Amino acid sequence: MTKKIDPIRPTDDEARALARDLISGARFAALAVLLPDGMPHVSRVALATAPDGGPVTLISSLAVHSQALTADPRCSLMVGEPGAKGDPLTHPRLTLQARARFISRDSDDHGALRADYLQKRPKAALYADFADFSFVRFEVAEALLNGGFGKAYRLTPEDLAP
Amino acid sequence: MTKKIDPIRPTDDEARALARDLISGARFAALAVLLPDGMPHVSRVALATAPDGGPVTLISSLAVHSQALTADPRCSLMVGEPGAKGDPLTHPRLTLQARARFISRDSDDHGALRADYLQKRPKAALYADFADFSFVRFEVAEALLNGGFGKAYRLTPEDLAP
Repeated sequence: MTKKIDPIRPTDDEARALARDLISGARFAALAVLLPDGMPHVSRVALATAPDGGPVTLISSLAVHSQALTADPRCSLMVGEPGAKGDPLTHPRLTLQARARFISRDSDDHGALRADYLQKRPKAALYADFADFSFVRFEVAEALLNGGFGKAYRLTPEDLAP
Repeated sequence: MTKKIDPIRPTDDEARALARDLISGARFAALAVLLPDGMPHVSRVALATAPDGGPVTLISSLAVHSQALTADPRCSLMVGEPGAKGDPLTHPRLTLQARARFISRDSDDHGALRADYLQKRPKAALYADFADFSFVRFEVAEALLNGGFGKAYRLTPEDLAP
């Protein structure tokens, strides 16, 4: 007998707060992109929040994920990493469905992002100005919060706004 | 000036050993799948090795990733999670390009997988026999090892064989 139940719970303030904490607390994310042959590909990227609270990364054009996002900006990010102890499946995590937007180096946004990012991630100063590195904003369309077994919620961009 | 260099190093025994350790030591993975509209989607799954050393998970048909893999088995897995300390971008991780194969409950493989998995993940006994849970093997076509900045390697299934 197969259970036919909807595992998604109604979104509440607790879920919204947890999702926002997972984004603002993330130092890195698992990033899923599409390869030229249509295969999904997952890798690790640094992650921080922009001044407006949205997720942003700093990536090299030499990386597989950068080349994939240049060709097709559709992507998905997961934040909320378990520590070395405890059950990784009960640790809350958040999946974002997003589009990547590369930030031109001569835009005003680049200057503001760069200053804010380097304050949050000082070590990135070692490579932030290399010619192959770009800031990339992730424009979120939808999010799925998994707070552990049976605790799933769908969230909108409005639910995630700081 | 844009650098035009190949960031992939020749695969050596050290890279092979590190990749195998990342698979055999993984308790969980970031799994990228394709949604019906073609969007990539990343989520967390439990991970263990099968008796033959290949990666295997136990997932519920209620989960978004399970429904996606049923429709399209192409997927990507990342293992190698950093701890709470240290730089997550220098922590080694391995991306697998794979196809998911659901294991029928009445197959011989299911019995062998189940016994081995529950020995490695005893808590999974709580749900392994629920009607909506299935063992899924990941058949790896290629792997990309990132050992930290500038240390990338491509590996074949033969490189990963225990």
